Amino acid sequence: MSRAVVLLSGGLDSATTLAIAKADGYDCHALSFRYGQRHAIELDAAGRVASAARVDLRVVDIDLRAFGGSALTDSRIAVPEAPTSGIPITYVPARNTVFLALALAYAETLDARDIFIGVNAVDYSGYPDCRPEFIAAFEKTANLATKIGVEGGERIRVHTPLIAMTKAEIVRRGVALGIDYALTVSCYQPDDNACACGKCDSCRIRREGFAAAGIVDPTNYA
Amino acid sequence: MSRAVVLLSGGLDSATTLAIAKADGYDCHALSFRYGQRHAIELDAAGRVASAARVDLRVVDIDLRAFGGSALTDSRIAVPEAPTSGIPITYVPARNTVFLALALAYAETLDARDIFIGVNAVDYSGYPDCRPEFIAAFEKTANLATKIGVEGGERIRVHTPLIAMTKAEIVRRGVALGIDYALTVSCYQPDDNACACGKCDSCRIRREGFAAAGIVDPTNYA
Repeated sequence: MSRAVVLLSGGLDSATTLAIAKADGYDCHALSFRYGQRHAIELDAAGRVASAARVDLRVVDIDLRAFGGSALTDSRIAVPEAPTSGIPITYVPARNTVFLALALAYAETLDARDIFIGVNAVDYSGYPDCRPEFIAAFEKTANLATKIGVEGGERIRVHTPLIAMTKAEIVRRGVALGIDYALTVSCYQPDDNACACGKCDSCRIRREGFAAAGIVDPTNYA
Repeated sequence: MSRAVVLLSGGLDSATTLAIAKADGYDCHALSFRYGQRHAIELDAAGRVASAARVDLRVVDIDLRAFGGSALTDSRIAVPEAPTSGIPITYVPARNTVFLALALAYAETLDARDIFIGVNAVDYSGYPDCRPEFIAAFEKTANLATKIGVEGGERIRVHTPLIAMTKAEIVRRGVALGIDYALTVSCYQPDDNACACGKCDSCRIRREGFAAAGIVDPTNYA
């Protein structure tokens, strides 16, 4: 079995990505970040998802609050509860570049050539670092950056199995793979009981995905 | 004045890079990492260099020991005291990718378009992430990854003023710019008094650089 690093946030997309990587036969090593996000509830969710999938989860601390600049890492900036135009304020500066760089470091120490990330460029919030051209550029960088890329025989690959799927397709695929989406948290601002707000962009996209898939949404909304 | 983020390790190369960025007229914001390196002495050096240059220094914690795999982040792996072939064990997996990703995040929150890194591909240890092709690929990634890259008018640039210089040229340039290299630490394994070992790859390259430049080496060797 080839080893793979799977970025796992505890949300719907990354849980589905992990299930796909496992179904594809990879020996998966999940990676999460305590990056100064508004709530630790998503890390609890990542732990539940990794346990249910029986994969090792590593949590790395990287405090992006040191830079701020996003509603997700600066508590003084409110999470929008209605759609906005352009790249929204929930965009965290260079987040996927930082996460992929750390996944690459972990892959290299595991002697893994495969990295999975659950980015999606269909039903998404318009973040620049979720687009296929970004992923392709990062993959090229990864192969030039590392010992395994330069000396290893096989190319490093960044897999984005969800990138061209609608949210409804993702939900259907995950349910077919046996995921219990009640374990996952997508909301940008869940309350202390892990109930989703139902209003933020992430809740809205998740809700519409379940509805379009014709599958009961197991999310607890406040 | 345009703002720039300058990666500052406290070594000779990054101190020179900061001086060049200042001389080029940038409003410099230095960035260092507490990444689990063997010694904190290099962070002290970064503090001294930033103070002497009168620039703000931000230190971000990112524990690369969580992954290990290098003599610089795993105390069980010895630092080689003689040249080795291939990419040496002091290579830290994906380190410059991680550092540049975080510099990019910081640049974005500062609304800066310029990042400086003191990589050198002449008198260096053979790390893959010090080569011009890596830097060019990262720069392309940065412009696709970020809000400032996508929505901003001006391209993000990764500057590598030292990349084609010999160590002797770097030392001469730094001295001309008024750097006190006694403030800097290059050694991979300084002792508790911040004395350099004089034996590791980094000490060897630094020593030869001062000798070739015909400039007295202010380093305290053990």
